[in-house]
Amino acid sequence: MDIDLNCDMGESFGRYSLGHDEALLRIVTSANIACGCHAGDPVVMRCTVALAAEHGVAVGAHPGYPDLQGFGRRALAMAPEELEASVLYQLGALSAFAVMAGVPLAHVKPHGALYNAAAVDEVVAGAVARAVAAFDPTPIVVTLPGSALVNAAGALGLRVALEGFADRAYTSAGTLVPRTQPGAVIHDPEEAAARAIRMVTEGRIDAITGESVPVQIDTLCVHGDTPNAPDIARALRARLTAANVTIRSL
Amino acid sequence: MDIDLNCDMGESFGRYSLGHDEALLRIVTSANIACGCHAGDPVVMRCTVALAAEHGVAVGAHPGYPDLQGFGRRALAMAPEELEASVLYQLGALSAFAVMAGVPLAHVKPHGALYNAAAVDEVVAGAVARAVAAFDPTPIVVTLPGSALVNAAGALGLRVALEGFADRAYTSAGTLVPRTQPGAVIHDPEEAAARAIRMVTEGRIDAITGESVPVQIDTLCVHGDTPNAPDIARALRARLTAANVTIRSL
Amino acid sequence: MDIDLNCDMGESFGRYSLGHDEALLRIVTSANIACGCHAGDPVVMRCTVALAAEHGVAVGAHPGYPDLQGFGRRALAMAPEELEASVLYQLGALSAFAVMAGVPLAHVKPHGALYNAAAVDEVVAGAVARAVAAFDPTPIVVTLPGSALVNAAGALGLRVALEGFADRAYTSAGTLVPRTQPGAVIHDPEEAAARAIRMVTEGRIDAITGESVPVQIDTLCVHGDTPNAPDIARALRARLTAANVTIRSL
Amino acid sequence: MDIDLNCDMGESFGRYSLGHDEALLRIVTSANIACGCHAGDPVVMRCTVALAAEHGVAVGAHPGYPDLQGFGRRALAMAPEELEASVLYQLGALSAFAVMAGVPLAHVKPHGALYNAAAVDEVVAGAVARAVAAFDPTPIVVTLPGSALVNAAGALGLRVALEGFADRAYTSAGTLVPRTQPGAVIHDPEEAAARAIRMVTEGRIDAITGESVPVQIDTLCVHGDTPNAPDIARALRARLTAANVTIRSL
Repeated sequence: MDIDLNCDMGESFGRYSLGHDEALLRIVTSANIACGCHAGDPVVMRCTVALAAEHGVAVGAHPGYPDLQGFGRRALAMAPEELEASVLYQLGALSAFAVMAGVPLAHVKPHGALYNAAAVDEVVAGAVARAVAAFDPTPIVVTLPGSALVNAAGALGLRVALEGFADRAYTSAGTLVPRTQPGAVIHDPEEAAARAIRMVTEGRIDAITGESVPVQIDTLCVHGDTPNAPDIARALRARLTAANVTIRSL
Repeated sequence: MDIDLNCDMGESFGRYSLGHDEALLRIVTSANIACGCHAGDPVVMRCTVALAAEHGVAVGAHPGYPDLQGFGRRALAMAPEELEASVLYQLGALSAFAVMAGVPLAHVKPHGALYNAAAVDEVVAGAVARAVAAFDPTPIVVTLPGSALVNAAGALGLRVALEGFADRAYTSAGTLVPRTQPGAVIHDPEEAAARAIRMVTEGRIDAITGESVPVQIDTLCVHGDTPNAPDIARALRARLTAANVTIRSL
Repeated sequence: MDIDLNCDMGESFGRYSLGHDEALLRIVTSANIACGCHAGDPVVMRCTVALAAEHGVAVGAHPGYPDLQGFGRRALAMAPEELEASVLYQLGALSAFAVMAGVPLAHVKPHGALYNAAAVDEVVAGAVARAVAAFDPTPIVVTLPGSALVNAAGALGLRVALEGFADRAYTSAGTLVPRTQPGAVIHDPEEAAARAIRMVTEGRIDAITGESVPVQIDTLCVHGDTPNAPDIARALRARLTAANVTIRSL
Repeated sequence: MDIDLNCDMGESFGRYSLGHDEALLRIVTSANIACGCHAGDPVVMRCTVALAAEHGVAVGAHPGYPDLQGFGRRALAMAPEELEASVLYQLGALSAFAVMAGVPLAHVKPHGALYNAAAVDEVVAGAVARAVAAFDPTPIVVTLPGSALVNAAGALGLRVALEGFADRAYTSAGTLVPRTQPGAVIHDPEEAAARAIRMVTEGRIDAITGESVPVQIDTLCVHGDTPNAPDIARALRARLTAANVTIRSL
């Protein structure tokens, strides 16, 4: 049994610092690095890619809607060809720093509102998948189990990794309970870790409505922007290891 | 005897159109394509690269200061590491579209205020050269004869192409007369073409002060943003061809 | 009988020119001036406001979603407080140039995707109306008859002007036929002018389905960004005048 | 004897937090609020202006070069008319929130590279002063004693407040020792406070070269972006008060 731990990184911008990248790079195995459109800038990208490479953490692109003010969390009605070109732009820009650091582009995980849209909207999913395929068919596309992006990426022959969330409640259909609903977020790190272990070792999760449902995942999302993010991530890693789960990149 | 004709392209942005790219791609042999920081956007970049590839025109990156409002024509006091990372970012972004179009990144020519700064400022020239070398040592760096960038690129083992201007007056030192001085720009296309032919075939130009001075060039800059730019470029090409000069990319 | 003719203006940006502002300011009576977020920049705003003032054309703000790349035509999921603050920001910025030119801020017309959203979405309409009311209760809010913004502005005691479109087909409910449907745009200037005259003088329009429906309007939208926009606007004005309609600002 | 304490504020942006605005608004008497070009966004501006108004702190505009990535700290070669229009734009935008909060625009202090340029470059100083005068002749211009902006503002009949720095070394000419020189910054809060008291009560400061030089100031700059900024500011205020100096806005 093994699992990848992925975390969004490189989200600082100019004078603005965000996250705990250096601490988290000692814990996770995959870094989703912002590409300068919803967060990040060229200096931040270079430093983050170099730091990830140094720690042996897999370098991935984390493209988002071009909306720095909204941090890529606001849906933006881009035409499919605009979105495809934007994602391609972001993949190319991040790859330049991967080339500089001598590491491959290991995966691609859309950010924020784009992640959500690509999970449910076939047109958006198709644009994201086409951008990856046009640039390089090698990186693994990270997305939700059962999402539109699983299908779109698969149709183009791309590899897909399925992502689980230790700290989010699931519906009986195996999808995430929207954050707006009560109980959507699990705040107790112990409980979150226990749920993660069950997803990894048994492939099942208890839905918010009580049923045990199957959830197949390849990677767990580690949140990086809360004050105690490194502590929680460290604890999660320790408990997974104690449960005989091997932590390794995709 | 042969010469390359290069032209800045892909400078449209969103709703804003600029230039005569389609017409000029039938005339020039190298396209310097904006990378989304001083001009251009992902859709424009994709279309321009694809169109250049279709016409067999060499695709080059045209990185500039990240200043869309100033069109990259205003000097910006970036730290060397900021500039190096920004150029690397732009090279990577443009390359994604070159990959998509199946063509190599043939050359790199800095834009506007960055072109000027890299010609006279060793720190700026060094940052630009390091970015190219870190990304890919293959593309040819296009700059002014005798510029700081010639030295910086050469020191890193990069190939360099020297650029001449048919429509600009030269000093007795072989440098360009600043645009602010009277007589700096040659408005008569006939005279400009005659000067271009002499630079290419004899390696000499008449300075504004009368002396004949040596000017070795590999490529001629064709301006693309005046209303009659395609006509002037077509006439220049015809006259060079009539003078037995072969027009081919670098 | 009288009518206002309004036109979007000041949509150039930096090196990019757009529209026929100077010609149209001799024809229309209200200028909707972009505020630097979806189009326009401070220099363009200053020039456009000054030029409108010089021609005696009423100066209005034309706030849009902060999305220069999409020209404010892409829906952006801003939170109501983000939108309200953004509109207030844009009103304040434009007003600085009105102060400089010694003219009042006469009206406010949202742009593009924001215009459309404010017409049908109460939350968006409320945010726009609150921004206007907080800044200055004097300017007239320009929107579609029957729109959510009519209600939101009215509830805050703001004055409202209803806008008609000479070159757009109407449904039997008196709303615009979406551009995606066949017949949505009327391309014949003669027919458009005749429809405008009927709306102004009779308060009625023939719907696309044939019925004559009532449409009460205070201002006609003149499009400014087609190549022959000034000719069409001049012809419309001439025909309205010939039909004894007085052209004057709101 | 009285003095104003001013502090840069409202420099957060979107998801990015910066500074200790809430704590510092309990200590200082003037807030220089970023205007959305080098830092700040409409939501941040609204909140910061409202919070300053609530605490009875004077609201001022803090315009900077339009360079979010460089936080306004990189010189940008704007043409004078571009700069004048940009400053006017920023004053207008900030004023909208002052109108909303029911407070006047009390002062204008340029930010970062613009502050430095306006202190030594007459063309830059003239552009800043013209923008203020065109918008509203009431706000007080805050700048260095002996700077170009003192003259430019004075020539247009604007009021000027002279700014001193408790934590910076002075030359024998009464100007600031550049940060690049050793000893330019005074790190000991006690020593900084003592120097501030001497500037306020005696109008003199010990230059880095030992001489006592006259320095007339109206306001002291309180830095807001170090981790312990509120503590230092509180201590400075306490020591000034203990020395019988009245802390009040300009």
